[in-house]
Amino acid sequence: MRAAIFRNGEIVVGEVAEPTPGPGQVLVKTLACGICGTDLHARVHADKMVEMSKYLPWRKPMDLSRDVIFGHEFCCEVLDFGPGCTGRIRKGARVVSIPRLIVNGEVQGIGYSNDNPGAYAERLLLSEELLHEVPAHVSTETAALTEPLAVGIHAVAMAALKGGEVPLVIGCGPIGLATIAALAHRGIGPIVASDYSAARRALAQKLGAHVVVDPAAASPFKTWEQHAGRSEAERAALGRALLPGGELKPAVIFECVGVPGIIQSIIEGAPQSARVVVVGVCMEPDRQIPMYACFKELSLQYVLAWTPAEFAEALELIASGAVDVSAMITGKVGLSEVAGAFRELAKPSRHSKILVEPWRM
Amino acid sequence: MRAAIFRNGEIVVGEVAEPTPGPGQVLVKTLACGICGTDLHARVHADKMVEMSKYLPWRKPMDLSRDVIFGHEFCCEVLDFGPGCTGRIRKGARVVSIPRLIVNGEVQGIGYSNDNPGAYAERLLLSEELLHEVPAHVSTETAALTEPLAVGIHAVAMAALKGGEVPLVIGCGPIGLATIAALAHRGIGPIVASDYSAARRALAQKLGAHVVVDPAAASPFKTWEQHAGRSEAERAALGRALLPGGELKPAVIFECVGVPGIIQSIIEGAPQSARVVVVGVCMEPDRQIPMYACFKELSLQYVLAWTPAEFAEALELIASGAVDVSAMITGKVGLSEVAGAFRELAKPSRHSKILVEPWRM
Repeated sequence: MRAAIFRNGEIVVGEVAEPTPGPGQVLVKTLACGICGTDLHARVHADKMVEMSKYLPWRKPMDLSRDVIFGHEFCCEVLDFGPGCTGRIRKGARVVSIPRLIVNGEVQGIGYSNDNPGAYAERLLLSEELLHEVPAHVSTETAALTEPLAVGIHAVAMAALKGGEVPLVIGCGPIGLATIAALAHRGIGPIVASDYSAARRALAQKLGAHVVVDPAAASPFKTWEQHAGRSEAERAALGRALLPGGELKPAVIFECVGVPGIIQSIIEGAPQSARVVVVGVCMEPDRQIPMYACFKELSLQYVLAWTPAEFAEALELIASGAVDVSAMITGKVGLSEVAGAFRELAKPSRHSKILVEPWRM
Repeated sequence: MRAAIFRNGEIVVGEVAEPTPGPGQVLVKTLACGICGTDLHARVHADKMVEMSKYLPWRKPMDLSRDVIFGHEFCCEVLDFGPGCTGRIRKGARVVSIPRLIVNGEVQGIGYSNDNPGAYAERLLLSEELLHEVPAHVSTETAALTEPLAVGIHAVAMAALKGGEVPLVIGCGPIGLATIAALAHRGIGPIVASDYSAARRALAQKLGAHVVVDPAAASPFKTWEQHAGRSEAERAALGRALLPGGELKPAVIFECVGVPGIIQSIIEGAPQSARVVVVGVCMEPDRQIPMYACFKELSLQYVLAWTPAEFAEALELIASGAVDVSAMITGKVGLSEVAGAFRELAKPSRHSKILVEPWRM
């Protein structure tokens, strides 16, 4: 079968072996698979992911001398079953799943793995136990956004909001947009969102941001302050308990960029006692000055991915229409265009989410 | 009066103007004042503290072309009163206070300030409203440890422990020791503590650490794991809810060193989902790889100082005998020996807390 393969630091199209489902596994056809920002980072910094695996006992490192197939935001069609499947999902059904494969009882990753190829391929293996059937009225394209929406839901859950916080979302790529959608769904606001791209700011508003700011024109933090003031009544109620910076509501800042320098810029701009949720995955060494974060008593919660329950919730929110993330899809490509799409996405002004449709010729 | 003055990057002894108490202020004689690790850092990196002040609206930057007098861990004797004092504390009483001075209703810092000299001087000004009288049975030396103990109490409070965590304290200087004392007082343990110095490890045990480790001989994180395992019964009760890394109890790691590289070493060594409380104040740019923290979903809570209530609690714990921190005092010097004490403390193998007694000739 054909696949877009990560080989020697590049994405190339080639033929790979047809997968065969093992016990409890299903063979599926990739209908659509989103290109994730982490895939873009991984193409350039795969060696750093390998290096990191030394510190993650649960993570098997990629062997970069061998082929890897990315792709972990997919909607697929069930083609066939391995031994021991229960048949709870019929052949032909459209499904989504967390990108995990159960192999001999062990939960393994799909995508950044030599063993378990991802969905930049015509077909792949999933675990029957982890499948969610996509309801008939939900489009394949939108279903493929389940995974990134789950990332936004998880980021907001990990923020451990107590009520009364005013959020600031830094970066309105797909993960920033998913975070905005999750915040808007929970009625948390006003949501202030920042991005250099006018197209992405427009998408942010579409997904629920109340205030958008171009950091080239105004400080996102000053803009946040203008929308985070406590009322006179609230200040009076706090009285002497009003701490330095207490004239503002609590800040929760979502870092959705993932490049060097962004965290220190947030540490410098954040108000006193802000909670920072780091959703962007910066793979390169980064420069931070810890003293600044100490004096502001900032908390930085680094997050990744989702829980299985959050993934299921994301599909429910999409299916019920409670959250509409479809606007973030800005392009679709076949396998031969994946390398070009990676280049396009590196210039973030135009695109947001590009879907790979491996069945396209 | 005489003082140890921070001038042109060095500590020199000299004569400075006698302070005069303003409204609500008292003139006090310094009986003892601890040398804080932050003072050591500030001597070398005062310019970085000035630079940081740009990002802290509440903080007036030091003018380094003018004299500064450090010293914020003091026990003093009340000498005289400014106008408007209530007399609630009598002349001759021994007092401690948070290092803050109320000037025309504004709360200002004492120590890292041109305006409000600290206690490396024969006399200084404090605010009557903020004074705590030291009970007669408490030694002056121990009372001077109120401030560093309050830092440990605050660090543990900011850890927001939910119960069941196993703490790891990295660095057993005075702040690490205060953190250990605060943890031990709250019955949290086993407390695992790490330091390169045998003397400091012995102090850590005296203050309540259950397990000490020399990082030159063994990994503090591996040692922590050996004391953080869940019992078979706990694992069974968690059943399928047991997440990756869930065979260990939750980790709370206190960073009490404050030098470049230490946070990344914790990010690399920490178990999944650990909570890191950054108590050490690293003033230099530091290198971190955010991806590592993302994949482990670490939380980093940066903290500073104490609340006024925690400061009061520290004095109560000392006075009641609930916490005995006196063992951390390893030296006493007069003003002319402060510069030498700074040099001594830079080699941490021998000393822990050195007290300055400006009345010594």
